[in-house]
Amino acid sequence: MPKDLEAVPPLPASVRELRLEIEEFNTEYIAVLDACRVEEWPRFFTDDAFYIITGRENDDANLRVGLVYCEGIGMMRDRALAIAKSMMFAPRYLQHHVNNVRILSVAGDGTIAAQANYVLYQTLVDEKTTIQQVGRYYDRFVRRDGRLLLKERRCVYDSLIIDTAVIYPV
Amino acid sequence: MPKDLEAVPPLPASVRELRLEIEEFNTEYIAVLDACRVEEWPRFFTDDAFYIITGRENDDANLRVGLVYCEGIGMMRDRALAIAKSMMFAPRYLQHHVNNVRILSVAGDGTIAAQANYVLYQTLVDEKTTIQQVGRYYDRFVRRDGRLLLKERRCVYDSLIIDTAVIYPV
Amino acid sequence: MPKDLEAVPPLPASVRELRLEIEEFNTEYIAVLDACRVEEWPRFFTDDAFYIITGRENDDANLRVGLVYCEGIGMMRDRALAIAKSMMFAPRYLQHHVNNVRILSVAGDGTIAAQANYVLYQTLVDEKTTIQQVGRYYDRFVRRDGRLLLKERRCVYDSLIIDTAVIYPV
Repeated sequence: MPKDLEAVPPLPASVRELRLEIEEFNTEYIAVLDACRVEEWPRFFTDDAFYIITGRENDDANLRVGLVYCEGIGMMRDRALAIAKSMMFAPRYLQHHVNNVRILSVAGDGTIAAQANYVLYQTLVDEKTTIQQVGRYYDRFVRRDGRLLLKERRCVYDSLIIDTAVIYPV
Repeated sequence: MPKDLEAVPPLPASVRELRLEIEEFNTEYIAVLDACRVEEWPRFFTDDAFYIITGRENDDANLRVGLVYCEGIGMMRDRALAIAKSMMFAPRYLQHHVNNVRILSVAGDGTIAAQANYVLYQTLVDEKTTIQQVGRYYDRFVRRDGRLLLKERRCVYDSLIIDTAVIYPV
Repeated sequence: MPKDLEAVPPLPASVRELRLEIEEFNTEYIAVLDACRVEEWPRFFTDDAFYIITGRENDDANLRVGLVYCEGIGMMRDRALAIAKSMMFAPRYLQHHVNNVRILSVAGDGTIAAQANYVLYQTLVDEKTTIQQVGRYYDRFVRRDGRLLLKERRCVYDSLIIDTAVIYPV
């Protein structure tokens, strides 16, 4: 997993449009999650998508292990259902903020490599709002029927100590 | 108060321009607040605007009660003056960050429904910076003389425990 | 150091393009920092640039003292090397988020005055992620060979109590 940061090529003028489109994608993505509509979460991915939530150390070491690991939309659907159930028993408010989308490259086949920074805030009953995790998306987007879909989203968090009672998607 | 999230229609291409314009509106709005120019805060609203800061539970239950509740610009002006005074006695630094603006709909009469995520950071004398509240704007914008104005801003916070010594606008 | 906020002139339509360009500049700037490529940090500045990290009180009082103070790219390069070394002995993860870019003015000679809000999150080994500082950039950009460069970046933090073990650039 080479660090995308090392390979930023000069980008065409259309890259700004792409950046804005990905911002809108991410905003829609987190709005669905924050509205607790986690069952809809898989619709942002291709059928063969790869999704992981993992720590920086694992990612740096190219280890594909993490708090959440999904290969293919089937695993995501299973995961979404499990989370929807567990949220009933451990209610909390979650809010994602996503910033600083950055286009890394656009491949010949149209695959877009991008990153973005995220924060996930969590509020438990009778507790103050805390930072559940801070991290960065490393994404691969493809276009299907004119719309962007995620072929890969690696969510790489800095936070080494995470409340893992419920692992909600980021 | 139906959840706006349920009713996202397909939007025309001009929606991106609108999104960028609202981002600029929000950035100007928070810059005024963070510069402690709270007396200017009402100028972002229509004369008949509705403004509330309330918790998610109240908003979900369609209850129009909150930490701050203003119907009309007169109540906002009163509020602004009261806050300006109280800030003299309880000095603190405040900084708002607003992210992820999302256009929900544009009505036939031009009213724009939008949302955005916010964080309000607070720093008291000799204390660390803390998250005062994390929340979401649910807005209705109208256009007057070419400029956007808020006809409604519902600030719905996740944070259940809030330092309410001074309730500054978000 | 007059407060930029007081002097927001009406801006031409091209200001949005400028805002988006500065967003991209800032995103690139923090990506380099967050990837621990601090040696590259000076390349975002002009040779004669001024850089400071200081508290709101100092900045309000027009005092040019701060946690970090650099006049000219030579001082920045020295600083970058020193930081690169100290990071080896005090490892930590850092992540910057930058929001709400605001163009304040464009001078006749093309110098752009702008501001933006930032948060720096810090994660130490075996500790939770914390807010290292919350602040605002006050920037002067100039254009060289078509690219933006910082002629001045004043990083003015709200946070009065900062872990100063390592002062990493913001």
